[in-house]
Amino acid sequence: MKTIGHFINGEVFIEGNCQQDVYNPSNGTVSKKVDIASKKTVEEAIAIAQAAYPEWRNTPPIKRARIMFKFKTLLEEHADTICKMIGEEHGKIIHDAAGELQRGIENVEYACSAPDLLKGEHSKNVGPNIDAWSEFQPLGVVAGITPFNFPAMVPLWMFPMALVCGNCFILKPSERTPSSTLYIAQLLQEAGLPNGVMTVINGNKEAVDTILHDDRVKAVSFVGSTPIAEYIYNTAAANGKRCQALGGAKNHAIVMPDADIDNAVNQLVGAAFGSSGERCMALSVAVAVGDLAADALISKMKEAMKTLKVGAFSDASNDFGPVITKEHQQKVIGYINSAEQQGAEIVVDGRELKVTDHEAGFFIGGTLIDKVTPEMLSYKAEIFGPVLQVIRVDSMQQAMALIDDHEYGNGTCIFTRDGEAARYFSDNIQVGMVGINVPLPVPVAYHSFGGWKRSLFGDLHAYGPDAVRFYTKRKTVTQRWPSAGVREGAEFSMPTMK
Amino acid sequence: MKTIGHFINGEVFIEGNCQQDVYNPSNGTVSKKVDIASKKTVEEAIAIAQAAYPEWRNTPPIKRARIMFKFKTLLEEHADTICKMIGEEHGKIIHDAAGELQRGIENVEYACSAPDLLKGEHSKNVGPNIDAWSEFQPLGVVAGITPFNFPAMVPLWMFPMALVCGNCFILKPSERTPSSTLYIAQLLQEAGLPNGVMTVINGNKEAVDTILHDDRVKAVSFVGSTPIAEYIYNTAAANGKRCQALGGAKNHAIVMPDADIDNAVNQLVGAAFGSSGERCMALSVAVAVGDLAADALISKMKEAMKTLKVGAFSDASNDFGPVITKEHQQKVIGYINSAEQQGAEIVVDGRELKVTDHEAGFFIGGTLIDKVTPEMLSYKAEIFGPVLQVIRVDSMQQAMALIDDHEYGNGTCIFTRDGEAARYFSDNIQVGMVGINVPLPVPVAYHSFGGWKRSLFGDLHAYGPDAVRFYTKRKTVTQRWPSAGVREGAEFSMPTMK
Amino acid sequence: MKTIGHFINGEVFIEGNCQQDVYNPSNGTVSKKVDIASKKTVEEAIAIAQAAYPEWRNTPPIKRARIMFKFKTLLEEHADTICKMIGEEHGKIIHDAAGELQRGIENVEYACSAPDLLKGEHSKNVGPNIDAWSEFQPLGVVAGITPFNFPAMVPLWMFPMALVCGNCFILKPSERTPSSTLYIAQLLQEAGLPNGVMTVINGNKEAVDTILHDDRVKAVSFVGSTPIAEYIYNTAAANGKRCQALGGAKNHAIVMPDADIDNAVNQLVGAAFGSSGERCMALSVAVAVGDLAADALISKMKEAMKTLKVGAFSDASNDFGPVITKEHQQKVIGYINSAEQQGAEIVVDGRELKVTDHEAGFFIGGTLIDKVTPEMLSYKAEIFGPVLQVIRVDSMQQAMALIDDHEYGNGTCIFTRDGEAARYFSDNIQVGMVGINVPLPVPVAYHSFGGWKRSLFGDLHAYGPDAVRFYTKRKTVTQRWPSAGVREGAEFSMPTMK
Amino acid sequence: MKTIGHFINGEVFIEGNCQQDVYNPSNGTVSKKVDIASKKTVEEAIAIAQAAYPEWRNTPPIKRARIMFKFKTLLEEHADTICKMIGEEHGKIIHDAAGELQRGIENVEYACSAPDLLKGEHSKNVGPNIDAWSEFQPLGVVAGITPFNFPAMVPLWMFPMALVCGNCFILKPSERTPSSTLYIAQLLQEAGLPNGVMTVINGNKEAVDTILHDDRVKAVSFVGSTPIAEYIYNTAAANGKRCQALGGAKNHAIVMPDADIDNAVNQLVGAAFGSSGERCMALSVAVAVGDLAADALISKMKEAMKTLKVGAFSDASNDFGPVITKEHQQKVIGYINSAEQQGAEIVVDGRELKVTDHEAGFFIGGTLIDKVTPEMLSYKAEIFGPVLQVIRVDSMQQAMALIDDHEYGNGTCIFTRDGEAARYFSDNIQVGMVGINVPLPVPVAYHSFGGWKRSLFGDLHAYGPDAVRFYTKRKTVTQRWPSAGVREGAEFSMPTMK
Repeated sequence: MKTIGHFINGEVFIEGNCQQDVYNPSNGTVSKKVDIASKKTVEEAIAIAQAAYPEWRNTPPIKRARIMFKFKTLLEEHADTICKMIGEEHGKIIHDAAGELQRGIENVEYACSAPDLLKGEHSKNVGPNIDAWSEFQPLGVVAGITPFNFPAMVPLWMFPMALVCGNCFILKPSERTPSSTLYIAQLLQEAGLPNGVMTVINGNKEAVDTILHDDRVKAVSFVGSTPIAEYIYNTAAANGKRCQALGGAKNHAIVMPDADIDNAVNQLVGAAFGSSGERCMALSVAVAVGDLAADALISKMKEAMKTLKVGAFSDASNDFGPVITKEHQQKVIGYINSAEQQGAEIVVDGRELKVTDHEAGFFIGGTLIDKVTPEMLSYKAEIFGPVLQVIRVDSMQQAMALIDDHEYGNGTCIFTRDGEAARYFSDNIQVGMVGINVPLPVPVAYHSFGGWKRSLFGDLHAYGPDAVRFYTKRKTVTQRWPSAGVREGAEFSMPTMK
Repeated sequence: MKTIGHFINGEVFIEGNCQQDVYNPSNGTVSKKVDIASKKTVEEAIAIAQAAYPEWRNTPPIKRARIMFKFKTLLEEHADTICKMIGEEHGKIIHDAAGELQRGIENVEYACSAPDLLKGEHSKNVGPNIDAWSEFQPLGVVAGITPFNFPAMVPLWMFPMALVCGNCFILKPSERTPSSTLYIAQLLQEAGLPNGVMTVINGNKEAVDTILHDDRVKAVSFVGSTPIAEYIYNTAAANGKRCQALGGAKNHAIVMPDADIDNAVNQLVGAAFGSSGERCMALSVAVAVGDLAADALISKMKEAMKTLKVGAFSDASNDFGPVITKEHQQKVIGYINSAEQQGAEIVVDGRELKVTDHEAGFFIGGTLIDKVTPEMLSYKAEIFGPVLQVIRVDSMQQAMALIDDHEYGNGTCIFTRDGEAARYFSDNIQVGMVGINVPLPVPVAYHSFGGWKRSLFGDLHAYGPDAVRFYTKRKTVTQRWPSAGVREGAEFSMPTMK
Repeated sequence: MKTIGHFINGEVFIEGNCQQDVYNPSNGTVSKKVDIASKKTVEEAIAIAQAAYPEWRNTPPIKRARIMFKFKTLLEEHADTICKMIGEEHGKIIHDAAGELQRGIENVEYACSAPDLLKGEHSKNVGPNIDAWSEFQPLGVVAGITPFNFPAMVPLWMFPMALVCGNCFILKPSERTPSSTLYIAQLLQEAGLPNGVMTVINGNKEAVDTILHDDRVKAVSFVGSTPIAEYIYNTAAANGKRCQALGGAKNHAIVMPDADIDNAVNQLVGAAFGSSGERCMALSVAVAVGDLAADALISKMKEAMKTLKVGAFSDASNDFGPVITKEHQQKVIGYINSAEQQGAEIVVDGRELKVTDHEAGFFIGGTLIDKVTPEMLSYKAEIFGPVLQVIRVDSMQQAMALIDDHEYGNGTCIFTRDGEAARYFSDNIQVGMVGINVPLPVPVAYHSFGGWKRSLFGDLHAYGPDAVRFYTKRKTVTQRWPSAGVREGAEFSMPTMK
Repeated sequence: MKTIGHFINGEVFIEGNCQQDVYNPSNGTVSKKVDIASKKTVEEAIAIAQAAYPEWRNTPPIKRARIMFKFKTLLEEHADTICKMIGEEHGKIIHDAAGELQRGIENVEYACSAPDLLKGEHSKNVGPNIDAWSEFQPLGVVAGITPFNFPAMVPLWMFPMALVCGNCFILKPSERTPSSTLYIAQLLQEAGLPNGVMTVINGNKEAVDTILHDDRVKAVSFVGSTPIAEYIYNTAAANGKRCQALGGAKNHAIVMPDADIDNAVNQLVGAAFGSSGERCMALSVAVAVGDLAADALISKMKEAMKTLKVGAFSDASNDFGPVITKEHQQKVIGYINSAEQQGAEIVVDGRELKVTDHEAGFFIGGTLIDKVTPEMLSYKAEIFGPVLQVIRVDSMQQAMALIDDHEYGNGTCIFTRDGEAARYFSDNIQVGMVGINVPLPVPVAYHSFGGWKRSLFGDLHAYGPDAVRFYTKRKTVTQRWPSAGVREGAEFSMPTMK
């Protein structure tokens, strides 16, 4: 059985002390092993990155960017291989994996503009014959810890920008979906990245804690659940590291009475069930304003869900695939059960789904629940499954209050035709990423990704312009050249530009 | 005896439970009392700020900026009053207080461009007929905790930008120098700021901890010593707050053999002894490259220091005044003693200085110490007194290694005429603010202030462009309007711009 | 009778050779004379500006900006005086003059952020150890030629930004409304502007042509009618000058069937008749989509216009005042006559208006014309009077085609509640300034003003960010410092960053 | 014999009415014919571009950029073919052609960041509930007219940015070097550009004038000689087109007494003689400060020039090749003769150079002339040949005066080690592109290229950030959504944000 190793100093390395099963969720079997790095391996990898840093830091940004240009081409050439790896280990359908990869490549494209993005501000004559400018210098060795649900995209949110800014990068991907990440790192090598600049370490909490406590690691980017995000952020902060940690979500769509309901339903089906709902931007709650809108929504959703096709990752005609593990499958079903017990109405029930020839796969069918209320457990938690819950309210204000009262503030959306409603919503809602008739308002790569409230710990959002600031430190230089003849008198007061 | 109160809801408030002496360091006497706020008072002030927030948040940025325009005018009109307050409580000479205030006003000027600084990025057609843009929304109630040594400037680094971004501000200044800060807040009121938007709380650790643990406070800016900065940062982070905490410094100037030595000496006298060295940007170590440069430096410094005039704040002919407390005076003298004991050479000795008619003032004369080595206690610590230490090295590389090995990385400077030396230095030195023939490279207000290493905890620097990002949170809106006839098919894959 | 002079070298100067009447349009009398400069006077003024340039160019931007801070304060203090001068000579009601002045002051506010706006871009390591940055240097002596209808605002669009960028400015305002412009220049002086940096020249075509042909003048900004704008632009271009020349307009509002019609009417009354329609952003054509919308619009406009109060500038209860001259009054009436003759329906007729006690004033009442068609003379021309014409169409596409087919493309507006209609309109309409439910979409001072098609000649728009680029020339510096020991081989090929 | 055609609507087209010889300057023979387009062909090509525009304009910027990503890859893959074409028709050595191409590709790389570069500015709450933003929309059909000396690079300065901004592009390259330009356009096609979006027209003055007078062409970029640049600019302006026209140059290097003379000589040899001096950034005058510097410069240049190898383009060991035509060869020799006659000293004489096996090639050897004075014809004119002239002055001020007095202001350079001299020079010199120890200060692709004085006509520089502004027009949208219940009163005054 194949063992997935680490990528250290330009080579695949298998430590061999500890290994863990990697499942194929589409049929519930173990298909590979992944090597789990010890503290010692992580520390050696950091040392190698540290050694590669000085030369990489001094490489002109345009040369660093050119490796990204080449990397983009390679990712496109090898897209099928990568998508198959993702599908096999994660279970998402091949077209969805392609979508993920494409979103990742967009971040590589953005990283190609590093020479422009790294420009500092130059001020002539801040005082007489004194100039000042800012430089954005790399941090050194930085790390990323990424989740199972986007093994290509989320790492690509992080390392392309970190690298073009001049940092060396240590990536610890999820041990459940390691193959594509490793493969991608190898393409980076092929694109011309010097050895040691990019590292992939598979590991568990030991690896994470080693990274968090090692003084040579200057920053950590994390995407995962909120409790872990909080732990990562506080531990990193206490260890003097820069950190951005993205956590959980509960994304609501408001369906207004004036919404184009067919359009809304079409959008919601994909946004709620795509990737089995295992996305931090999945649309998991629809808030219908008025019973008319709610009834129409329920009835049309029910109809639309009849054609949903669930199955193995490899069949491109499927709409979505299994969830990641047996345990997670049971957890999602538990949430549906609890909603039922707490009085919600299961309109479409995916709990008993069996997929022919894939009976051991971790499948759950698309599930639609009506008459959910804020007190229900299924509402409070992030389910991370193919479950859309509908809440009925009387007014837009009530809908907005629901969203603002929720622990998370990642994404949200409103369906309406009305300019004023859209503007009021986007202005006031306490959520970081807002869609107007766009159910998955994931910002494009040249904007930045980030939730509010307990969906993100840190000052700066992920990728896009904020990432440039996250992966660099500001240096400000103030310069005056002494002229031949002039001698200034001593200045005892605070120097100012009077 | 006058009691300095708090500024809450547009009024001066004295709680009356606990008060503390405020000294005049120029003559060593207690001149006023300052009221110390209880937890309850702090919490009520936060509640008032919270209540004022929604309307302030919705005030157009240009209107918020116009209050700053007016505020600038008022600060200039009342500069003498403010400088006298600063001098009386801090001891710095009136011209130095004026310099401090001017630097603070520059931040008010920068805040006047809020409408420009708050612009988001607008992208047309991120996909077909889909637009996206970013908004930078205020955080809510935010706080600042500021040190004794710049009672006007450091608060002005913080609240003007915080306010124009739409936040309400709680300021806890140093209890040793409270008068000018309170007065300035009252001018803000006069400039038209609504009640509750700006608050000043005098207090001690109880007030600080109340701020740090209150969920309604969304961010904390701090300037002070490194141990406290680290405590503030970690506590704020653990409580889900955004934080930037600026700590201590040990700023070195390299004097190269080709330096314009007269110019360097003129600059150093002011940079080392101005404000009695009680500045986080004070130049406290001169690293001379080669004995020739060192001998010239020592001899010319000695000469230049003969004319140094030390005395009470109110006499504008003085160069600098007393240090802040009796305890601090003894601590500084202790550092000089230790240097002497560890083998350094006291070239000019300020320990015994007596100022006529101000015998009880907390004075120390300008002190120059030669042949300091990195092992000495006086080198490792931030002395915060009128003491310049000289280290002799053989090469620029040795000089740079010294600087990079020090715990702090706030400011630094090189004196040279050579373009290549200057560029190499500014590129490689591990310090956040670099001067080329500029001994106090405090960035102008439209750049940002921040040290590296243990001189700053946080991602973003103080004031300038970074402050805009610090005092706002990013919201990204993605918008598509459904057209009349077109209905899109459901999208199950990750939506991308293929 | 008072004579209005020029402002040269910090003093008011009257040449005395040639003078012209200045009318008070509210009562049709000559109230002052204005001195008309000869070619010689213009050339001497340019020489003085030229002499003042080197020192002003080298003044740090923050110091230049501080004069604008002071200038803003003075404009606000003397607003009443200025507004009275405007009203007296132009005829606009005092509250409208105040609005104009306020809009002008906003440009002064924007100019206060010069140090930020003038920042260049700094690139570290464009090649190994090679840095590059851009500087935006002033042009030298630049000129502005401004129209009668905004004697305060339009000059303030130009010179504050030109000055803070480091240029010296020659302003030739309209000879019909010279007083306020001269007064404002004197306030600039009071604010601390050095002599010679700002010049006001009253004159006619001779002065204009002198400016256009003098090599020492590096750029010309113009606002006026399209034929003159075109002449100015081509003459300036042929003489090697940078130029932006803003011309005429015909601004349409589309009233959609779903529009909030009461709101639209309220907005239109002000936008069409305010300042007697003598604004390049006046809303002079309403395009109603569907007869339902048209009928409602006509009926409600008729009603709303009943309360319109027309009269002398000094009575703040008036809605608008006279037009600028007797000739212009007759010209406007001529357009109304022609519309009537060509078959349009005069719904409200302002031709016969008499204002008690001001019978000789150049008044025209608010006029509403229905059933206008594109062939009519009154539709083709810019009337510049208190006349609103209504065109009826069947669809939004027809409405947009009308706008796109018109010679001018300054401003336009749509009244709708529908997000999709608004977005389609703003995306596709061939007009530079677009309002969504905003009838006078004059960009705020921190954006830029400019029409399309024959409404503007030049690459860059007026005021705002474009003005910074207009009033500066880019310099790019590329820098490498030779290191001590390394000698590079000769490079014969085009040097690149391979 | 092969005929080079046009590229219209995605196909190569040969009109066949008129053709012109294309020479191989390395051996003086005619190697190909180029088809010369008639007015009719140009007009048809414009019509095709016009037709392709609407769809291209609406293509999301990221999709337009992705064609550039692919285009870059294709240019790199086919670099050898392109460089051979350039060398054959222009004569420059293959490594120099590769340098040119690489510089061109850098502009393609910059164009890949179009989505970021096209971002507008978004302002929330410019007034209560009013938002405003700017959009940068394409102009429509735009044209470029480019010179013989950079058949790949100069077109690549223009069309990649024009295209990603959403314009359709008509390129008229030099009829002397048409092959590579045509080939490159075909690669663009292969990269996925839709038919009609890119057009190449070979032609003469008739084609140029057709472009300049056709209303459908909205902008023209030109690079060539100053008299033609001036004609193009004035004609374009008179025809309502946006224009930037780059003309001639005379680039001086100041050699200061403290310069690293060996480094300077190494740099100068390449900068003066590379590409036979046929570059608008060629360094053609060295101004030596002091006879010591002058003598050293002359003596070391003489020595360095001994190894110069001149010959056919195809031999990569050559340093430079022939000039473009027999006529140009004679013209350059004429300038050398005139210098000699006017009293200059010909130190190294290239007039008589014969290249074995290429006797009919248009060669001139590297020529060094000492004791040139400003009155000489050879100093006043742009020679555009392998001739370096040396002027001796006594001070840096004299050297700078020479440069500032010259008609042109394209590029310049100073060789020094002194920070103060470099800063004074770069600040004050009246030249658009300045090098500090960099003899060819061509800005990198993410900065902009442009001279001052009579080296550039137009407001905006070529490529880089300025090109984005040049190839787009600004639209400003101001938006308010009427709320359900609120009705605003009519506003007659100028609306402001009080």
